[in-house]
Amino acid sequence: MAKKEMEFVKEITRMEDDFAQWYTDVILKTELVDYSPVKGFMVIRPYGYQIWENIQAFLDRRFKETGHKNMYFPLLIPESLLNKEKEHVDGFAPEVAWVTHGGQEELAERLCVRPTSETIICSMYSKWLQSYRELPYLYNQWCSVVRWEKSTRPFLRTSEFLWQEGHTLHETYEEAQDETIQMLNIYREMAEELLAIPMVTGRKSEKEKFAGAYATYTIEALMHDGKALQSGTSHNLGQHFTKAFDITFLGRGGELEFPFHTSWGVSTRLIGGLIMVHGDNRGLVMPPRVAPTQVVIIPIAQNKPGVLDKAYELKAALVERGLRVELNDDTNYTPGWKFNEYEMKGVPLRIEIGPRDIQNNQAMAARRDTLEKAPISLEGFADNVVDMLDSIHNAMFEKAKAHRDQMTFVVDDYEVFKERMATTAGFAKGMWCGERECEDKIKADTAATIRCMPFEQEDLGQVCHFCGKPAKHMVYVAKAY
Amino acid sequence: MAKKEMEFVKEITRMEDDFAQWYTDVILKTELVDYSPVKGFMVIRPYGYQIWENIQAFLDRRFKETGHKNMYFPLLIPESLLNKEKEHVDGFAPEVAWVTHGGQEELAERLCVRPTSETIICSMYSKWLQSYRELPYLYNQWCSVVRWEKSTRPFLRTSEFLWQEGHTLHETYEEAQDETIQMLNIYREMAEELLAIPMVTGRKSEKEKFAGAYATYTIEALMHDGKALQSGTSHNLGQHFTKAFDITFLGRGGELEFPFHTSWGVSTRLIGGLIMVHGDNRGLVMPPRVAPTQVVIIPIAQNKPGVLDKAYELKAALVERGLRVELNDDTNYTPGWKFNEYEMKGVPLRIEIGPRDIQNNQAMAARRDTLEKAPISLEGFADNVVDMLDSIHNAMFEKAKAHRDQMTFVVDDYEVFKERMATTAGFAKGMWCGERECEDKIKADTAATIRCMPFEQEDLGQVCHFCGKPAKHMVYVAKAY
Ligand SMILES: [Zn+2]
Ligand SMILES: [Zn+2]
Repeated sequence: MAKKEMEFVKEITRMEDDFAQWYTDVILKTELVDYSPVKGFMVIRPYGYQIWENIQAFLDRRFKETGHKNMYFPLLIPESLLNKEKEHVDGFAPEVAWVTHGGQEELAERLCVRPTSETIICSMYSKWLQSYRELPYLYNQWCSVVRWEKSTRPFLRTSEFLWQEGHTLHETYEEAQDETIQMLNIYREMAEELLAIPMVTGRKSEKEKFAGAYATYTIEALMHDGKALQSGTSHNLGQHFTKAFDITFLGRGGELEFPFHTSWGVSTRLIGGLIMVHGDNRGLVMPPRVAPTQVVIIPIAQNKPGVLDKAYELKAALVERGLRVELNDDTNYTPGWKFNEYEMKGVPLRIEIGPRDIQNNQAMAARRDTLEKAPISLEGFADNVVDMLDSIHNAMFEKAKAHRDQMTFVVDDYEVFKERMATTAGFAKGMWCGERECEDKIKADTAATIRCMPFEQEDLGQVCHFCGKPAKHMVYVAKAY
Repeated sequence: MAKKEMEFVKEITRMEDDFAQWYTDVILKTELVDYSPVKGFMVIRPYGYQIWENIQAFLDRRFKETGHKNMYFPLLIPESLLNKEKEHVDGFAPEVAWVTHGGQEELAERLCVRPTSETIICSMYSKWLQSYRELPYLYNQWCSVVRWEKSTRPFLRTSEFLWQEGHTLHETYEEAQDETIQMLNIYREMAEELLAIPMVTGRKSEKEKFAGAYATYTIEALMHDGKALQSGTSHNLGQHFTKAFDITFLGRGGELEFPFHTSWGVSTRLIGGLIMVHGDNRGLVMPPRVAPTQVVIIPIAQNKPGVLDKAYELKAALVERGLRVELNDDTNYTPGWKFNEYEMKGVPLRIEIGPRDIQNNQAMAARRDTLEKAPISLEGFADNVVDMLDSIHNAMFEKAKAHRDQMTFVVDDYEVFKERMATTAGFAKGMWCGERECEDKIKADTAATIRCMPFEQEDLGQVCHFCGKPAKHMVYVAKAY
């Protein structure tokens, strides 16, 4: 075991030594992603893109079950549209890419590559919406967006990323608020049920909310290194945009009214999250439900009669059950080499099948999450594998939750808090006064930010843990990606 | 009937009067699409986007069955990369959009919004490919592309459109050629089995081929107005790009070799095709397998006891069979209004269910394609509906084929050919000398172009029907969208 560990040390930096380098090594060596010739833009390779496809499938199903339909809006947005809502343009203008020439001609008006689509979508909603009978508008878009970033890291912060953006209109504030929370809950479900990542859910501070939103809600995860990752946001936009874009409808009382508006999105950043929550020094550890390959079957002594036939039979049984299965019978590589390869790629379950196993009507099942290896009966094989994948999912979720809980502490003393943020980081829970000045000071002192005011408020005292003023909210504070 | 027809005349221009206006009326009134604030860019609305989702589902399944995986490459391409393959840059540079500023800064090098991704993908393939063992590379990308167009029409020619682009590498020319033809055949299958559109398949002339290709193959459909629509292309790119981008691999003989390369794509243009092949003066006629709503159920006298219950029971039976079904029990509208609405939207089958129908253990089934209405038994109802949808698909395909055949003629006399292209248009079949000069003259005289040299060559004589020189190929000529 020590030797094997050593071999990996050669390839992947140990996370304890340099977490950022570990991350880079893992994503490049497992071929999730690569750098492109355009600075800050990534290429998502098949192994990474399949994860995104699985996330898309989960969410798209849930969006449709809750009555949403997909549309597609233009990639390019006229500067004048972006300028219509002041907070929004202030938030996004500094980081957009500008198209100035189309074909051989200079454009009369610059067009920005969409950083998000509120403005262009609102301009169309304004044209379409007539009556309260047509509400709610429940629409979503899958696309890429561009935000010019100076310092980038694949999946986590790139100048282009893939995402979905929902944009809905409602007759009342309450309906818009219900939608905002419903979509946040779908994100939490997805994170927990698909990615095995526990989430803290809550509301963003005024400082941290979306440019132009009435309120922003977030799901926040804790990474292995103690830093937080904002993993999805849902915005109650109130009537800011609907007023700026003159979206009106004939209300039940016969008067023109402005609808209430939400938007919500998650992105390929989630892939970065699952790597940093579950990965280890051997590489990726894929949660089974999102894994591109859920089970790899490796025949042992495959030249012996019956081995390959049995291996293919097992594969067929799993495929029949709807699992994503790979069988590697490439004779150019030894079983040991293959074990290492699929461990690095994080395949949740490895099935080894050789002559003696067949004799015993069993196979060997090696779990990626615990690295445990034990016999698995071929009697009811597919059921056994499905059960084991569920166990792996649950164990990964519990392990991530235990790690998060262990890294979560209450701010008793501001100096200890500063010290901890500078070393092990983690989630700091504390009471907060609600003042921007206090929030700015936390960031200046520690580089940490208020991640959210969680829905599950705990009563941790009467005064702000950060400045001593009267407390208003309990908050989670962390350094964040 | 005459009165009903009249009502529609008010809303949708008759195709015999002005086909272009008919098309515009249909796509806007059925809410497939809308114009956006950016000239030449369209908004694809839910009813249009669902068609695209169904096309994607069909193709993505076929791509994966044939061993392809999806990836994602950057939206923006450096000018220097675009310039690496000369024919390619000459073909695309005049119609690309240029990003010159990122955030507040002017870029050192201009970036174009991808018009197609050969160049950026080749730059990565060059980095990745090492050995013949890794070949073939079978990858695809779903994305949007931008090509600056002066004169646009939704779905048919827009400055941005959605598409997929496959990009593969192979060890030998033969394998690349096989792939090129395999993917063309998948496109033809999709057109015929999903969209009920018959296709002529063949090779493009040198003039009409893709910029940088060794050979381009195409599927060509004939629209209702006698014009052709290029509906999908598959390119054998030979080694043009692999040499320009220095993509090499260690061959079986131990020497560095350049792989052979293909690319292939279809786009949202297909939606324009299905509208113009199947539509009529009442609006859309949706082929059942791609229709967002395959069956609409309209209760008659729904206040009578048992009607709504039965209507929902029928809906549940169809949903259970995997059909896409809508039930409209909105009491704000009469059944007659609903009939018109769903006819305009092209829903393939309308089921009417009222008290007397229930008594007779039947419903009324109205086909959109033939406008025929007949009883359908509730005994084995879902099976009956599935059979009827299949019949509709087949009938629509045969009708489109008969129309195409009727609009196809052999070029006997150049003057008659010119006259016909100026009036009823259609597909002209003729022998061709293979000369660019002759091809240019055809276009100058008639605005028609050589659509392809079909795989099914017919022997129509020894001399070029267009100039009298010795003939080399039989071709299809048509005016095209
Ligand atoms: Zn404070
Ligand atoms: Zn000729």
